[in-house]
Amino acid sequence: MQKSVDTLLVGGVVVTMNKQFDVFYDGAVAIDGDSIVAVGAREDVLAAYSSDNVVDCDGKYVLPGLVNAHTHAPMTLLRGIADDLRLDVWLLGYMMPTEREFVTPEFCRLGTKIACAEMIRSGVTAFADMYYFEAEVAAATAEAGMRGVLGESILKFPTPDSTSYDEGLAYTRQFIEDWKGHPLITPAVAPHAPYTNTDETLRLCTELALEYDVPLLTHIAETAQEVQDMIDETGMRVVERMDQVSLFHAKVLCAHCVHIKPFEMRVLAERKATAAHCPSSNLKLASGIAPVSDMLKSKMTVGIGTDGPASNNDLDMFTEIHLAALLAKTQANDPTVLPARQALLMATRMGAEALFLGDITGSLEVGKRADMIVIDAHPIHNMPQFDRDPNNIYSRIVYAAKSTDVRHVWCNGQILMRDRELLTLDEPALIAEARALALKIDAFLRTREGSVLSKLVAIVELDQAETFEVQFKAKLSDETVLDRLLTHPQVSIQLFNHYRQYDSYFLFDDEGDERVRYREDDKLNEKGEVESVRTRLTYSVPTYERAFDSAVLLFRSKFIADATRPLRFYREYFQPKEERQLEKDRRRWHILFQDVLFYVNLDRVIKPELDGLFIELKSRTYSMKDAEKKARQIQTMLTILGITPEDVLHDHYIEMDKVV
Amino acid sequence: MQKSVDTLLVGGVVVTMNKQFDVFYDGAVAIDGDSIVAVGAREDVLAAYSSDNVVDCDGKYVLPGLVNAHTHAPMTLLRGIADDLRLDVWLLGYMMPTEREFVTPEFCRLGTKIACAEMIRSGVTAFADMYYFEAEVAAATAEAGMRGVLGESILKFPTPDSTSYDEGLAYTRQFIEDWKGHPLITPAVAPHAPYTNTDETLRLCTELALEYDVPLLTHIAETAQEVQDMIDETGMRVVERMDQVSLFHAKVLCAHCVHIKPFEMRVLAERKATAAHCPSSNLKLASGIAPVSDMLKSKMTVGIGTDGPASNNDLDMFTEIHLAALLAKTQANDPTVLPARQALLMATRMGAEALFLGDITGSLEVGKRADMIVIDAHPIHNMPQFDRDPNNIYSRIVYAAKSTDVRHVWCNGQILMRDRELLTLDEPALIAEARALALKIDAFLRTREGSVLSKLVAIVELDQAETFEVQFKAKLSDETVLDRLLTHPQVSIQLFNHYRQYDSYFLFDDEGDERVRYREDDKLNEKGEVESVRTRLTYSVPTYERAFDSAVLLFRSKFIADATRPLRFYREYFQPKEERQLEKDRRRWHILFQDVLFYVNLDRVIKPELDGLFIELKSRTYSMKDAEKKARQIQTMLTILGITPEDVLHDHYIEMDKVV
Repeated sequence: MQKSVDTLLVGGVVVTMNKQFDVFYDGAVAIDGDSIVAVGAREDVLAAYSSDNVVDCDGKYVLPGLVNAHTHAPMTLLRGIADDLRLDVWLLGYMMPTEREFVTPEFCRLGTKIACAEMIRSGVTAFADMYYFEAEVAAATAEAGMRGVLGESILKFPTPDSTSYDEGLAYTRQFIEDWKGHPLITPAVAPHAPYTNTDETLRLCTELALEYDVPLLTHIAETAQEVQDMIDETGMRVVERMDQVSLFHAKVLCAHCVHIKPFEMRVLAERKATAAHCPSSNLKLASGIAPVSDMLKSKMTVGIGTDGPASNNDLDMFTEIHLAALLAKTQANDPTVLPARQALLMATRMGAEALFLGDITGSLEVGKRADMIVIDAHPIHNMPQFDRDPNNIYSRIVYAAKSTDVRHVWCNGQILMRDRELLTLDEPALIAEARALALKIDAFLRTREGSVLSKLVAIVELDQAETFEVQFKAKLSDETVLDRLLTHPQVSIQLFNHYRQYDSYFLFDDEGDERVRYREDDKLNEKGEVESVRTRLTYSVPTYERAFDSAVLLFRSKFIADATRPLRFYREYFQPKEERQLEKDRRRWHILFQDVLFYVNLDRVIKPELDGLFIELKSRTYSMKDAEKKARQIQTMLTILGITPEDVLHDHYIEMDKVV
Repeated sequence: MQKSVDTLLVGGVVVTMNKQFDVFYDGAVAIDGDSIVAVGAREDVLAAYSSDNVVDCDGKYVLPGLVNAHTHAPMTLLRGIADDLRLDVWLLGYMMPTEREFVTPEFCRLGTKIACAEMIRSGVTAFADMYYFEAEVAAATAEAGMRGVLGESILKFPTPDSTSYDEGLAYTRQFIEDWKGHPLITPAVAPHAPYTNTDETLRLCTELALEYDVPLLTHIAETAQEVQDMIDETGMRVVERMDQVSLFHAKVLCAHCVHIKPFEMRVLAERKATAAHCPSSNLKLASGIAPVSDMLKSKMTVGIGTDGPASNNDLDMFTEIHLAALLAKTQANDPTVLPARQALLMATRMGAEALFLGDITGSLEVGKRADMIVIDAHPIHNMPQFDRDPNNIYSRIVYAAKSTDVRHVWCNGQILMRDRELLTLDEPALIAEARALALKIDAFLRTREGSVLSKLVAIVELDQAETFEVQFKAKLSDETVLDRLLTHPQVSIQLFNHYRQYDSYFLFDDEGDERVRYREDDKLNEKGEVESVRTRLTYSVPTYERAFDSAVLLFRSKFIADATRPLRFYREYFQPKEERQLEKDRRRWHILFQDVLFYVNLDRVIKPELDGLFIELKSRTYSMKDAEKKARQIQTMLTILGITPEDVLHDHYIEMDKVV
């Protein structure tokens, strides 16, 4: 007497991915409720089970649903917004400013649903996520019917959903309370990365994960720079340092692990921390190739992830599995490394283990949840087929199948896609919403890109907005002339500094003739050695506003900010039409003249190579009346120096490309 | 008054890939006969042209057809037959034996049609091919309606279609005569690679290409080994050497170029030789990552190819374009390298130039042939979309579009696919034929794999088939005992050699208890230095056939062959269940005893470490009567040596794993 079950999948090749790697070439699977109740040869399963709902799988492959071990689902809404850029330009120049403006609860719901639609279409049934408003990600994932290990991101900085990490941790606690125990959703805490957290925030995240026994998700050793910074700061590599701060007391899923050494792999394996390998993203951002085959040799549990769709730019696990298998071979200089079966394992059973879901999903086994997919076996791009070698079946799936070959998808016993039709999501509505939002984002970025200043404002904390100065510049016949001023009874010297200054001017062809200057100030000691270095960014329009007595000028020097990134970053971000270099030796006195602060610069211009010395007299000013007063004072000082107003130089150093 | 044309594509984003990279966001294309007669904004084209056949392209991208710059089309029929193997094992162990057996004109026609079906489906309209029976490839390609630069392969060895290169060249000449001037087919000559040709065959191929002004296709610097071998042989790198033999006098398309140096890139650029970058295949076979961005900097013309479907395992140019863009970034450690537009260029206009077809295809321009594809713009995996940056469109195509997004394909003005339905090929019939053939190939390989001997026969030239020997082995108490025999009046010493022998025994769990031995014989001179090295392969069944007087044994030593490949090759090819190492010092005398040739071996067994010395007395034998006679002679020698038959050792050295 057969037992009646909800669904029977009959026929086709059932690739179980269980410990024995059983494959049933004419198999069947019985699903009842949320679980698999039988897997085996067709006749065995049919002898024991019957169903009103029989799915014919002849000419198909039946597989466990794929596990995407690392993504940022809502970022579908930023797909392709900026590509072929360096990580910092991409992240700080585009992602973060756009996220600051647009990431809301609604954004996260919509973006997650689009991600789920795309993932279901490509055979994914479970994924690990790290983003903001993760409760919204959870709601959307549950609605789509997918399984998710969803980590709320914690950073030491303010984020789109919290003004401080205190708020972020409180949000996470509530999120865990609300979602823990849900049949599909595993809430998690996600300290974004070691370098975006502090020891304190990492400790608090670990404690929270332990308190609720939920996974902790983070990014580990994605770039060589991150590792070098960690070594510079702590003397330790990233995994070593994270072990020291006890992060691995929690169940930790480490995304990327591109730059880890064998001893770090052993630490991760011993601590039962898992990894998510993201080959496309790591290649695209030129982060490197993760040493996956060494990780596996070290007994690490390694899943495969797409990373976010803003750096990939899709969520196609078939692409990632294929690439994981291919890259490992070239990295090891050995084509026998990471064979197809192993690659598929990483995206199924081992992937589930990486998400700490190994007991309920990742393989077709009795008692596990019915998370499974059915793939067309005979598209022309996968024909003909050979079965001499038991590995042929894995080879076909990994090296030639496409995500669009996926026909049906079940998760937790529920069918999510039937004959490529999504059953839990309204795809046309999602696309329409996304298009409307994209227009707004495009408009926002167009406005920002329209002006150099707005691009600048998007990425820096301004120290000084809109300052003005009066200024006079002339050639100085002789250095000793300056003594007349410095030793004058109305002058008192407040401060003296000696600098070597390296300026890079970015010029644009905008009407406003805007300029961005990146300056490195090397402060020299009495021996002429570099004592300290400061880098600043200045935005200016070089036109002078007004000349007083044809000699003293009022310049606008609009915005000044600390330059926290390297010159290269700003060059790639601003993409100037032209760049000019200026290098000079500057001696600078802060003097009080008639009790007013002036700056006296004595400059020797090394690049462009200019003859002689230049003197600048400058003061900040705040009103036209104040400017007029300071201009008169400069005129008095010129008299003391014996310089006539006709000696004034109007050109900027970078415009003096021959000997003056 | 509008001119009436055959077809009008109206609406959508027309991505021309012309020199100015014009993109028409609401564009149109007019096709008449085999050519494009207008490309531009919708209203401009519609103002000038009308047609009874208007294709609505709203919500689509219109692109030039993709160019697959390197493949072996008929090898679709060997897709996935053997994967995750090293190049030599894959090629010599699987591809070549199977090709020898199955590659016929019919095979090439069928395989090419399947390749064309797959390529049309993924948006390819032109490809470069290298295989055998290329006239059949041409016929199938023309029938499919695709454009092909088709090279008949020339090797110094016999091939499936010619017993010598003379025959191959005669075939090629006829092939060129028959197909030159065809609107779709460009016949070509394809010396397979420098290392599979001689200077003479390369010269003849170059002359043939020049005589008919057809392209010459070849593989260049695919592996590091190939480059090293060339340097060892000629003192030159591959491109340098090919330049010396004047190969580049012809129009040469070089596949792979993985291991070329900047000076070689300059040579190729100067000679106007072009390259085909095959990222998937190079990764999968662990050949390496071609220095594509350096090639482009050197002004080389570089296309992108899938390589054959037996090493890829598909013909999906979307995968290759994506991978080319990604790999270049990680190779250069710079994510700004090979941006999306450049990658797409390599698969369109530059790809056409690589095939020497730049004047007629590769971009949407008036006067070029109508080779074009239409892609769905709005699948969920490519939503939403941004258009702020002119590069966004290329980014979407390269980083997120899939080959299955291709909806319509035209080549030479003829529509080949409409709404994903193939119009020139009968896909179900092709699949049925391919399945039938695959069953035969599977059966052939199963039989071969069923026996160690048949696997051996598939890859070696046997020197000696089925030899027998009589043999006696015993421990020797004292080295001087041997002098009794060597100085005996009935003995004359013919030859003496001293060897260090390293044996690797492959053991299998077959019933027959078969063994394959890989032996390295290091011949030592009087000082104990290695004088020469020889490697041999022996297949044997260790059971002795008959014992004479319980002491002299008749062994079968079935097959001996020169081992031309490294030990590693045979290990990976035979996949033994167990492997045992034997290392010994052997002094070997060829003696005549009673005018019969015997071998006397005095062995010290180093690995496994065995105490003392061993003596072996052996002779080849050809009949049972001869064996009996020689056994009696061995008994006589034993008496001279003072060894009793009871001292006989039956075990093989590798079975003596403790001190005897």
